[in-house]
Amino acid sequence: MSWERNVRKVEPYVPGEQPQRKVIKLNTNENPYPPSPLVTDAIQRFDETKLRLYPDPKAELLVDAWADYCRLPSDQVFVGVGSDDVLSIAFLTFFNGKKPVLFPDITYSFYDVWCDVYRIPYKTRALDENFAIVKEDYLTENGGIVIANPNAPTGRQEDLDFIEDIVRSNPDSVVIIDEAYVDFGAESALCLIDKYDNLLVVQTFSKSRAMAGLRIGFAMGNPKLIRYMNDVKFSVNSYTMNMPSIYYGIAAIQDQKYFETITGRIIRTRERMKRELHKLGFSFADSVANFIFVTHEIVPAVDIFEELKKNDIYVRHFNQDRIGDYLRITIGTDEEMDCMIEFLKKYLDGGSL
Amino acid sequence: MSWERNVRKVEPYVPGEQPQRKVIKLNTNENPYPPSPLVTDAIQRFDETKLRLYPDPKAELLVDAWADYCRLPSDQVFVGVGSDDVLSIAFLTFFNGKKPVLFPDITYSFYDVWCDVYRIPYKTRALDENFAIVKEDYLTENGGIVIANPNAPTGRQEDLDFIEDIVRSNPDSVVIIDEAYVDFGAESALCLIDKYDNLLVVQTFSKSRAMAGLRIGFAMGNPKLIRYMNDVKFSVNSYTMNMPSIYYGIAAIQDQKYFETITGRIIRTRERMKRELHKLGFSFADSVANFIFVTHEIVPAVDIFEELKKNDIYVRHFNQDRIGDYLRITIGTDEEMDCMIEFLKKYLDGGSL
Repeated sequence: MSWERNVRKVEPYVPGEQPQRKVIKLNTNENPYPPSPLVTDAIQRFDETKLRLYPDPKAELLVDAWADYCRLPSDQVFVGVGSDDVLSIAFLTFFNGKKPVLFPDITYSFYDVWCDVYRIPYKTRALDENFAIVKEDYLTENGGIVIANPNAPTGRQEDLDFIEDIVRSNPDSVVIIDEAYVDFGAESALCLIDKYDNLLVVQTFSKSRAMAGLRIGFAMGNPKLIRYMNDVKFSVNSYTMNMPSIYYGIAAIQDQKYFETITGRIIRTRERMKRELHKLGFSFADSVANFIFVTHEIVPAVDIFEELKKNDIYVRHFNQDRIGDYLRITIGTDEEMDCMIEFLKKYLDGGSL
Repeated sequence: MSWERNVRKVEPYVPGEQPQRKVIKLNTNENPYPPSPLVTDAIQRFDETKLRLYPDPKAELLVDAWADYCRLPSDQVFVGVGSDDVLSIAFLTFFNGKKPVLFPDITYSFYDVWCDVYRIPYKTRALDENFAIVKEDYLTENGGIVIANPNAPTGRQEDLDFIEDIVRSNPDSVVIIDEAYVDFGAESALCLIDKYDNLLVVQTFSKSRAMAGLRIGFAMGNPKLIRYMNDVKFSVNSYTMNMPSIYYGIAAIQDQKYFETITGRIIRTRERMKRELHKLGFSFADSVANFIFVTHEIVPAVDIFEELKKNDIYVRHFNQDRIGDYLRITIGTDEEMDCMIEFLKKYLDGGSL
């Protein structure tokens, strides 16, 4: 089978488990609340006869709705099949130089996978011992910069001045700020996109909008960045956004009140969890995301992980340097979290300590 | 803006127009009939609360349903966001050599766009004067072969022996047979995939299944081909198939009777149209697809195109060498086609002749 010589061989990203049984699922940072009731209406109102037609390749109705929401002109908004699609196209579009693209050693684990599949040179920069990004690491020569802010899986945020310094210091590179978790209390860099033509801000409907199942993500930047991304997108697949995404997505944007309600609820649960987890001997960087990245003073993370899983509570463990003794726990409903806390109390009080 | 030096600059594919007004739309080979009533049921039954969760990254329910339908094991089926996504990933996965990938000069106009965006060397091979593929052209050294069968925009089919000869003669290349239009009366190469490990057959739900708006496409091949494609897919975007695609798509597969009814209806309309168009002075290769690729003995194609458009009848014209005097006319409902024929009768009888 010598056709195999020409195959692009890669190590794919491994997504968090999607158990088919009913479990307490705190492993993939999903929203514990259903999407807005306006989405339910949109599903019921959806005219199935139009499925025979191609969707609008530009998904203009959805792009316009999001642009409106962000108070941006539509030519500053790019839409994709989740922020993974948006980021993948941004990597393919902007990172074609010989200098390495830079991102933290501990961050969203898809960044190096995209570099591998697209043969993009990259270097990771170590977070400091508190999992903070070291600004100076990004003031050296590079072919691009990618920073998740808040960072995953740490949940830590760098402030806007910090981000702006990096963007300003790198006029020859596209700087991507991946804001998948921004809506849970962090500060967005969106206000900087008109000031810096090299800044691309990426957001998603999969977390705060409770729409992971629909696959919607956006990038915002100056019109030139967006145009280049669209050129590449239209060279890969013209019709990526299917009709349900377009129509159900618009409905989600329209319900600002619901969005604020569920987001506020998740934030309150998170803050309460910080206190509870602290009492149980966990420590963590201060998360502004919909998850907390914890380590226990005595019990190894992997033991807690296995024990939780045995009891149908799924959290995420990364078998990876420096963070092997951490667990990323998604913020669920109060009931789910209380159930986990009760379990941890018993487990940590028990024979193992 | 020197970040622009590192931008991947491309000439994107230009999809057919999607007019927002109500017109007789015969320009993008969509199905004139709505999807199966089972799809309507699936939409009504769809549980919107689960949208908060990520979809199954493997879309196993949908893959299994299609594998069942094709009487294949599931590990011989790859699913993507329309056959464009499937083909794009196949190009990225299999065409990484230095030898040129081969495809006809007149064919689906996305093939060279994918080669450009992924920096794949390619050469086109001229169809003969009857728009037939010249087999010998594909028996030379190459880095891969792509053949649409039936071919677009010609509608012509090459028979299975012809396809098999090409596949058998190229054991060192992956041969992709793009069967977007196979269900309208052509012969599929699917029966050959267990015999040849280098054969990938691609099909879509956008034409015969009346689901262009949902974006579903499949590739079928030996398990190794499918595994390589999945590795790349999981390196680009894990969660491509959203929940509506998965659930509504399964419903469409289940309604075999409806599929046969609408497909049969389109075939009958096409055969009648061949007679009508012939009477009006059009000639064309014998189409087995849901479109006819016509040229008129007297009136230039572009004039007919413009005149039809002025009268809200959209067909496709390709401003391209060798086929500039042709129009690709999608088969619509009988009513739509009669309306077009009536218009053409008047127009061609009128002052212009």
